[in-house]
Amino acid sequence: MTYCVGLLLKAGVVLLADTRTNAGLDNIATFRKLFTFEAPGERVVAIMTAGSLSVTQTTLARLTDAAEDPDADERTSILKAPTMLKVAELIGATLADVRAEVSEKLDRMKQSASATMIVAGQRRGGPMRLFLVYPEGNFIEATADTPYLQIGEHKYGKPILDRVITPDTSIAEAQKAVLLSMDSTLRSNLSVGMPLDLAVIEAGTHAVTSQRRIEAADEGFARMSRAWSDALRDAFQKIEAV
Amino acid sequence: MTYCVGLLLKAGVVLLADTRTNAGLDNIATFRKLFTFEAPGERVVAIMTAGSLSVTQTTLARLTDAAEDPDADERTSILKAPTMLKVAELIGATLADVRAEVSEKLDRMKQSASATMIVAGQRRGGPMRLFLVYPEGNFIEATADTPYLQIGEHKYGKPILDRVITPDTSIAEAQKAVLLSMDSTLRSNLSVGMPLDLAVIEAGTHAVTSQRRIEAADEGFARMSRAWSDALRDAFQKIEAV
Repeated sequence: MTYCVGLLLKAGVVLLADTRTNAGLDNIATFRKLFTFEAPGERVVAIMTAGSLSVTQTTLARLTDAAEDPDADERTSILKAPTMLKVAELIGATLADVRAEVSEKLDRMKQSASATMIVAGQRRGGPMRLFLVYPEGNFIEATADTPYLQIGEHKYGKPILDRVITPDTSIAEAQKAVLLSMDSTLRSNLSVGMPLDLAVIEAGTHAVTSQRRIEAADEGFARMSRAWSDALRDAFQKIEAV
Repeated sequence: MTYCVGLLLKAGVVLLADTRTNAGLDNIATFRKLFTFEAPGERVVAIMTAGSLSVTQTTLARLTDAAEDPDADERTSILKAPTMLKVAELIGATLADVRAEVSEKLDRMKQSASATMIVAGQRRGGPMRLFLVYPEGNFIEATADTPYLQIGEHKYGKPILDRVITPDTSIAEAQKAVLLSMDSTLRSNLSVGMPLDLAVIEAGTHAVTSQRRIEAADEGFARMSRAWSDALRDAFQKIEAV
């Protein structure tokens, strides 16, 4: 499993992904699920992935190859596509093709493979956008009504987002919110695991503002997790019973 | 869908169930999912249900018929079975039989039906016990390590239980916890709905201590829900960012 969450704020996007992959509970590993592509000052695209690793790796590899190809054009490269909508379409088409190819191979074993992705980014002259791309290549987009998108194990970490996130939330508060949303998920689902990848793209910069890995031993994250547990217990004590 | 939760405390058991059933999003209805059986001073058994309504209603009807039968004996009646373990086995066997019969009918339409149940109770001379009965009739039991059991949509309401419930939690605090756990679930899953049924069985009384329905317009529940939202937002503000 996986948990990735992306917030679309007026100030920019905040993205957080775990890194655990598993093929059965007895076979777990760490793989990056958050990827960024930049033409600094011109365009930035971030992708987070959930689902079958063979599908997500091949999709990312094809997108990377296409973007690095000297003959790349606006129909083949996510760094050259004319709008973020076209970027989402290109990623969706690539994902759908790879998923179909892999599933065709697996069909002989009566199995199939699938994946979903969150795509965020901004090109010079356009707004910051945040998409959730489905395995079939179609997608939905975050709006002011629902300014966040999640893939993977989304349920445990949803209540906190519903309560604190609006488009006006600051980048600092938003980072806190996605980390606490992840904390609830880590506590409840073994197939979501540390380390975490956290990225921020401030609106109008057309570049990755910050990106860091939070390791399992991270003191700050552990302190925040304890403080949140304590705060929840305190808040619970203060609520009057019905 | 459904959300039912039962807590096994030293002080007794606290049970909460929603009442929404649906056959598609465009066909919702209200049906009780919490049922109590009493031989006051001798024994009390409570059952909460999730799953196909045709399976749960028929199972409850058979258990009720068997308990009311003047010829009922300890092999047929949950009010006469010698231990709570035997009660759970009897409920499991009845559920498994009904599920198999209904699924046999549905098989011609390539469909199947299923249900799970939470069973709580105490007989004179025995401890209070809390079981989760699976569709196949087997079951697990709550222990001091994990003093609660959930059926239906369990994810949204789990973090609060993990943080505040221990076997030493008081009945009053436990009622608050299950209501807040339900509140998180109601906010996030449309197929879980008001009104709610809340029951308490204090240890050693062998009777239902209290049972009440909380309607959608309940002022106290609405106030608690708002207070919890406010408390969470306050707690969030006070957490230091990593």
